[in-house]
Amino acid sequence: MKRVGIDLGGTYIKGGIVDEENRIIARGATPTMAEREAEEIIRDMSALVKKLTEEAGIPLRDIAGIGIGSPGTIDAGSGIVLYSNNIRWDDVPLAELLGKMLAEDADGSVIKVRVSNDANCAALGELVCDTDTGVQSAVLLTLGTGVGSGIILNGKLYEGEQPGGAELGHMVICHGGRQCSCGRKGCLEAYVSASALVEDAKWAAQEAKDSSLLELTDRLNGRNVIEAVRQKDPVAVKVFEQYLEYLGCGIVNIINIFRPEIIYLGGGICEGFDLMEETLQTYVKENCFGGEIAAVAQIKKAAHGNDAGIIGAAALIEME
Amino acid sequence: MKRVGIDLGGTYIKGGIVDEENRIIARGATPTMAEREAEEIIRDMSALVKKLTEEAGIPLRDIAGIGIGSPGTIDAGSGIVLYSNNIRWDDVPLAELLGKMLAEDADGSVIKVRVSNDANCAALGELVCDTDTGVQSAVLLTLGTGVGSGIILNGKLYEGEQPGGAELGHMVICHGGRQCSCGRKGCLEAYVSASALVEDAKWAAQEAKDSSLLELTDRLNGRNVIEAVRQKDPVAVKVFEQYLEYLGCGIVNIINIFRPEIIYLGGGICEGFDLMEETLQTYVKENCFGGEIAAVAQIKKAAHGNDAGIIGAAALIEME
Repeated sequence: MKRVGIDLGGTYIKGGIVDEENRIIARGATPTMAEREAEEIIRDMSALVKKLTEEAGIPLRDIAGIGIGSPGTIDAGSGIVLYSNNIRWDDVPLAELLGKMLAEDADGSVIKVRVSNDANCAALGELVCDTDTGVQSAVLLTLGTGVGSGIILNGKLYEGEQPGGAELGHMVICHGGRQCSCGRKGCLEAYVSASALVEDAKWAAQEAKDSSLLELTDRLNGRNVIEAVRQKDPVAVKVFEQYLEYLGCGIVNIINIFRPEIIYLGGGICEGFDLMEETLQTYVKENCFGGEIAAVAQIKKAAHGNDAGIIGAAALIEME
Repeated sequence: MKRVGIDLGGTYIKGGIVDEENRIIARGATPTMAEREAEEIIRDMSALVKKLTEEAGIPLRDIAGIGIGSPGTIDAGSGIVLYSNNIRWDDVPLAELLGKMLAEDADGSVIKVRVSNDANCAALGELVCDTDTGVQSAVLLTLGTGVGSGIILNGKLYEGEQPGGAELGHMVICHGGRQCSCGRKGCLEAYVSASALVEDAKWAAQEAKDSSLLELTDRLNGRNVIEAVRQKDPVAVKVFEQYLEYLGCGIVNIINIFRPEIIYLGGGICEGFDLMEETLQTYVKENCFGGEIAAVAQIKKAAHGNDAGIIGAAALIEME
């Protein structure tokens, strides 16, 4: 059966109808306007679902369920968004509220609604879209403003034993190091987010006498840092080498814990994945516990971008 | 049914018959003499099993199976010890060899043999012996010469998706920091093993002008460092505070990933658990991702010491 996947973001609510082969066959979006009451936002989400199904000509009762990827800490069992800084939600029973609103539009039919963290959904989306069949385990790191993570173990999403788990970006790799948004110092996020790369590049550019980064300092972003690396700007190259060292360190930690078959890397920085792949794969082989004896994950670019969030959210429906 | 649990160590092979209530009803040990060929060691293990069952008056065919906790990297699926520095094994098909030897003693009956890492077995042993019923998730850290770890998720041992996982001691918490035995720098093991505490105490004692540790420097061990902390020796107290800071950091990382209900701490240092508990529990509450909103594990002393290894090994038999 077809499912609806929703990617709830700080700016847009994106949705799609996803078919049995994990293809998005209809898609739409509506502004989140996150400053509003949660119930208003969820009402727009409900309207988006209705619009999508109507346009596709599929009655809501023929949809297997609605999966939602939400930012923040989620209680997946109850579908409650416990806390999200991004959309400023606190204890919002998202699954229940959306289910009720949709039932009104579906003559009282019970609509299955599942919620998980957005990075979890993206990981699941990458895995179900991967053409390497038979892969059952993967970890996704999204290198954006922060560092999100999604973990797939034995073919299933792993969200931790209780809410608030699977937060690989908030693993300290430098005790007493850089301030992280979570309150601790030295988290992986503080070193390998796109924001961290940009900050490092700004500092290095200001200290350097000549670098193509200098003229960009006021409008540096992940993409133009990567572009400067591609152009072999020596300051950018040096900053990027240090960045990859931290990223490699975090990836090796993850492998020593989970031994997944694949590590997916996502986020805008991964436009430079070709500049990262070999260095990271070599670093990981040399540093993993047990060296060559133990299984070392393949590092791949998360290839489905925003679509992975929608497809993975839809895939929540079949995870039971 | 009763099971046999074996704890294969560098010095002794310890074994016990474990009853349905996870009590050891018969026990024995034989020297490992680890410099010998693996097959000779396994033959002694087989003899130990035979002796235990004979003494207890339980025919081998009435034993549900033999579980073994082995040091090193194990392929639990096939029962092969891929690599163990401790007993110098390399690709030893332990389950198969022991099964064959036991079958000879049991008129050809098939004897189920399961193998896992020794720290995994200890974690499982602590969980099945815990009087808090209903607990389904826990992580054990053994603070010894190194740092072993065992992870229980949803009531089952988690060994990683492929061999060489669940190595929480080899998670870098201080990038570029202290040299670890695994080849990397800055692993948790290099900061929170008993050996690390003793090294730190030695250095601090040598720099201090007066400390009760000074007269002990040549024979310092985990226990007498803890004793000096208990006596409020200021140098020892300061070293221990720093130690707990690193340990807290590692525990918070583990909670942010797994959100287990319990963190067990084991090893000789935990004779000083009363000196650690409050500091660690406070640190963890203040530093976990999501703070008070998310679930924070209870930190407990691993109470069953060496017995946990035997009981947990026996419990491998019922994990399927």
